[in-house]
Amino acid sequence: MANKTITRIGVLTSGGDAPGMNAAIRAVVRSAKYYNLEVFGIFRGYEGLIQNDIKKLENRDVAYILERGGTFLKSARSQEFRTPEGRQTAYDNLKSHGIDALVVIGGDGSLTGAHLFYKEFGIPSIGLPGTIDNDLSGTDSTIGFDTACNTAIEAIDKIRDTASSHDRLFFVEVMGRDAGFIAVNAGIGSGAAATLIPERKMPVENLIERLKSRAKAKKQSNIVIVAEGGKSGGALEISKKVKKFLPTYDIRVTILGHLQRGGSPSSFDRLLASKLGVAAVEGLIHGKEDVMAGIINNKIVYTPIKRAIVDDKEVDEDDFRVAKILSQ
Amino acid sequence: MANKTITRIGVLTSGGDAPGMNAAIRAVVRSAKYYNLEVFGIFRGYEGLIQNDIKKLENRDVAYILERGGTFLKSARSQEFRTPEGRQTAYDNLKSHGIDALVVIGGDGSLTGAHLFYKEFGIPSIGLPGTIDNDLSGTDSTIGFDTACNTAIEAIDKIRDTASSHDRLFFVEVMGRDAGFIAVNAGIGSGAAATLIPERKMPVENLIERLKSRAKAKKQSNIVIVAEGGKSGGALEISKKVKKFLPTYDIRVTILGHLQRGGSPSSFDRLLASKLGVAAVEGLIHGKEDVMAGIINNKIVYTPIKRAIVDDKEVDEDDFRVAKILSQ
Amino acid sequence: MANKTITRIGVLTSGGDAPGMNAAIRAVVRSAKYYNLEVFGIFRGYEGLIQNDIKKLENRDVAYILERGGTFLKSARSQEFRTPEGRQTAYDNLKSHGIDALVVIGGDGSLTGAHLFYKEFGIPSIGLPGTIDNDLSGTDSTIGFDTACNTAIEAIDKIRDTASSHDRLFFVEVMGRDAGFIAVNAGIGSGAAATLIPERKMPVENLIERLKSRAKAKKQSNIVIVAEGGKSGGALEISKKVKKFLPTYDIRVTILGHLQRGGSPSSFDRLLASKLGVAAVEGLIHGKEDVMAGIINNKIVYTPIKRAIVDDKEVDEDDFRVAKILSQ
Amino acid sequence: MANKTITRIGVLTSGGDAPGMNAAIRAVVRSAKYYNLEVFGIFRGYEGLIQNDIKKLENRDVAYILERGGTFLKSARSQEFRTPEGRQTAYDNLKSHGIDALVVIGGDGSLTGAHLFYKEFGIPSIGLPGTIDNDLSGTDSTIGFDTACNTAIEAIDKIRDTASSHDRLFFVEVMGRDAGFIAVNAGIGSGAAATLIPERKMPVENLIERLKSRAKAKKQSNIVIVAEGGKSGGALEISKKVKKFLPTYDIRVTILGHLQRGGSPSSFDRLLASKLGVAAVEGLIHGKEDVMAGIINNKIVYTPIKRAIVDDKEVDEDDFRVAKILSQ
Repeated sequence: MANKTITRIGVLTSGGDAPGMNAAIRAVVRSAKYYNLEVFGIFRGYEGLIQNDIKKLENRDVAYILERGGTFLKSARSQEFRTPEGRQTAYDNLKSHGIDALVVIGGDGSLTGAHLFYKEFGIPSIGLPGTIDNDLSGTDSTIGFDTACNTAIEAIDKIRDTASSHDRLFFVEVMGRDAGFIAVNAGIGSGAAATLIPERKMPVENLIERLKSRAKAKKQSNIVIVAEGGKSGGALEISKKVKKFLPTYDIRVTILGHLQRGGSPSSFDRLLASKLGVAAVEGLIHGKEDVMAGIINNKIVYTPIKRAIVDDKEVDEDDFRVAKILSQ
Repeated sequence: MANKTITRIGVLTSGGDAPGMNAAIRAVVRSAKYYNLEVFGIFRGYEGLIQNDIKKLENRDVAYILERGGTFLKSARSQEFRTPEGRQTAYDNLKSHGIDALVVIGGDGSLTGAHLFYKEFGIPSIGLPGTIDNDLSGTDSTIGFDTACNTAIEAIDKIRDTASSHDRLFFVEVMGRDAGFIAVNAGIGSGAAATLIPERKMPVENLIERLKSRAKAKKQSNIVIVAEGGKSGGALEISKKVKKFLPTYDIRVTILGHLQRGGSPSSFDRLLASKLGVAAVEGLIHGKEDVMAGIINNKIVYTPIKRAIVDDKEVDEDDFRVAKILSQ
Repeated sequence: MANKTITRIGVLTSGGDAPGMNAAIRAVVRSAKYYNLEVFGIFRGYEGLIQNDIKKLENRDVAYILERGGTFLKSARSQEFRTPEGRQTAYDNLKSHGIDALVVIGGDGSLTGAHLFYKEFGIPSIGLPGTIDNDLSGTDSTIGFDTACNTAIEAIDKIRDTASSHDRLFFVEVMGRDAGFIAVNAGIGSGAAATLIPERKMPVENLIERLKSRAKAKKQSNIVIVAEGGKSGGALEISKKVKKFLPTYDIRVTILGHLQRGGSPSSFDRLLASKLGVAAVEGLIHGKEDVMAGIINNKIVYTPIKRAIVDDKEVDEDDFRVAKILSQ
Repeated sequence: MANKTITRIGVLTSGGDAPGMNAAIRAVVRSAKYYNLEVFGIFRGYEGLIQNDIKKLENRDVAYILERGGTFLKSARSQEFRTPEGRQTAYDNLKSHGIDALVVIGGDGSLTGAHLFYKEFGIPSIGLPGTIDNDLSGTDSTIGFDTACNTAIEAIDKIRDTASSHDRLFFVEVMGRDAGFIAVNAGIGSGAAATLIPERKMPVENLIERLKSRAKAKKQSNIVIVAEGGKSGGALEISKKVKKFLPTYDIRVTILGHLQRGGSPSSFDRLLASKLGVAAVEGLIHGKEDVMAGIINNKIVYTPIKRAIVDDKEVDEDDFRVAKILSQ
């Protein structure tokens, strides 16, 4: 496709917020300035685009946001953007500001929107993988995933204090939607007795077996990590099933919840977000469009959005194997 | 009662664990050594006392525990200790080790046990207030309360990132049993829209009113702190009631749960636990018995256990007033 | 002095920044609004007052600052304010904005400025103790002190990991200017072998003795806390003296430095700052002037500034005693 | 060399400690048990090996160490191991315990020891990269590096609070020996004005230029990251040079120091250490010897120790470029 000259970039965050989104926005703004481009912030995602909630951004607007969780551009769901009329309004607003390219930071739904918008109006757009769930192909790690894993294990470290003081069995539910990435990392990182993820069936009988065998080995406290999207149910349901088989166990459940989405981004996520923010601007300058920028094997890679959002990224077989060996 | 010479002190933790319990145990052991007394650790609270799970402690046993959450002596509930037979066995075990005084670290149930034991067998015992709930009279702050407040606001800071990114209303449930201390601190400390505590009725209508008035003032994100022991129900129930009145609000609920019990103790709790640990040993040496050591107005105070466990400690009127002013 | 009606309050931060200053500003702004007063933010302390760097503040200006370290009003030193001409200009600027009362948040130098200003121009002003050093009379704790203690012990916890892995002796220098408050708290909170503070001489020989006696007791790692304002010098100097006597020791020095001034305020400091911010506004309304608001024994107390800045606050004798017992 | 059957593995940590070493030890012990091997812990590195400070390890010995910084096996330097006699004694001690393979966790000096020992006595050994400096080839990241980066940026976040409150220029010195990895990550992660690393010369004039141009752009606070091993000197020296050119700047220096070595390991480091611990045991079982296990492009890779310790690993060109773009 012909290399159109880009002069004004719009940037928005969409979908669930993730730590590092602000770092990515900052990198987009600062690298755009570096290349003498103008940047416009679109507030509240596609919804703000339709409502023309758009503001020019300068370097000073992104000062002191690098280290903050959430997204200062805010995020929202937009029903209207799902309609052709909504998208037409959105396009008209972009044009009225002279914006000729988009950077969209978010998860698969957000990137799908960018893809659609590109197909219908030819707006070059680059997606950045911003989600704690790590469920996007085209990048080893999504922005926010590392921070969410740290948040999870820090919380579980605290729970372990209580678990071991009371010889209790804790079921801790972590986020991740349909993906078990956070759960597997948290499972290994917290020395869990077992880790239940959506990608793998673990019959309750096997879990009971594992717990009983650990009891024989005099392991008195146990933490079981449960991914929220599991097919056998969440932490609460599974704990009830287990309780039936192990009625004498002192069982507790904690659902970590939304605190996993927030917090100051980790060093890893700040670096990742910064590099991807620069890559988005440089990609647009070099004529990339309808792609997601990611990092695979330490190299910037641009993957067609259509391919990035196909959910075929899998929990590393070897990670799961290690989790199992270490929990015996 | 006559000032018996103490030579061997037993120390145990009982009830829910709290950050700083280890610091208190360490202080008991080290100050006992300083005064040339022997110390015995009783594992798993009164249950371990009955089962004779008792071990002599040296300074090296309490190295590197000061900064750790939980209690390395472990804690447990004991049905048997509620029976006269159980307590007799416990007493026999104490005697068999030559233990002539007890330091009991825990909440009101734990202190009640110490009181009973004193009354029945004349064992001098000093209680230390170890609970995150801060619901003991005889001390301005219980061991673990400050850490729990810090843990709560750090978690809520993360939730606020998400709340403000999405203009959401979050109901966050904090611990505290029947007491609103953690809730009020967390409410002020997180700039909450409202704080619901067991000690005060706040009709749902008033809460709705507050939220609506804030909406007019363009406050787009809101956090409501709910103490677990509230009469109008927990965060989940209240959120449902509110949802009926404010159906367009994007409402989420997080129950912080047991992570509030763990974690490395704060500077405040380490200091408090250390001072109280020393005060317990010095109190026993000076003939105190059947009292709880606490700190009121920066001074060590010994309060009869019977009085300390009477639940008449109240959330500071002025704190609640400040919370209200600042949330308008 | 007669109770003038206050309608416009100016607020400034001055001197070294401290965690919780933002929470105090927020409380001043929000409680002023609550009482239907206007508030003006004076940027960069007295320097900004002279340069007329003054802006009206609304509730939205103080949104999301409660949890942030530093001060969004910024702070600066002002040579000019020390001159009568400078103060005249400052006064003229206040009057031009119709500001009829001041809230000054800072340490003793900042409060001295407020006192002087009051004496010369009759501007009612209330000081709030904002300094990590805790060296102001008229309050049990200054805003920022608790956070600084937490920051110090968290850093020392990390250093202890290394100290104990290598059986090393670490000298850790903490802040506090001429006061040993942070040092004593950090000393107890980190289980230090010794704590050197400005208020107490500890001859190097005694320190050597203590270290040798601990070596006999097989304590292989040691941390010595040194307050920056000590008469025997800082951590570096003392470590050199000790090295001469204990040449085989593996000695390291860490000067924690300015990181102790920053960071998100603790729950305690948020509560303290919030209560004092409200107390400042309510004090002005009730005719208080030329006083510092503090909290003593859990009650709001207004102390004449002249008395608050007299440096006679002392490290608690008992805290020092406890530090000594626990480090044997 | 022929695939000898391994039955008893010795594990030691050596050199500077790094967060995650305990997680690696735990993984070695638990996976060895999983494969029915015995494990012996060698305390205080090669020094302990010479002094026969060796103890059999069971799963319970490594309970609750996963989340702790430092190394419970302790570390030490050994002059004696550099002599043939010392190594002979070490070998004799190994044999007396029937240990037929070694896992050595540490930096390049530690791995060199393992290589030498292998060459002289044929003891199969696998090294694991345990150092915060990330200066080992054969792995994308060393154990402890990610945690050290997080520790550094969290400290710098606090310093930034102060820097921005006072419009100051801070020089912050981070660790890394001769390598700039921590510095570059911290530079990007903290939005530094400049990052000075050993691998690149940055004349003071250029730094002055950068600072002046930022001053024109009204950036009032500045943080400059200085790697400890820089050729132009440490943070203190550079700050003095800059002060000469910019005498009106309010300049401060903080040397983060040893706190960067400690702390609870990050999720990333726990995962890395766990996987490498398993890889070490499985490598030995499969006949690997004289290699370091690392992770490159998300895959376990065994690199001859001789090659891993050649210091040719370089800071990513692109990371440095991104740092520069974002600091303009």
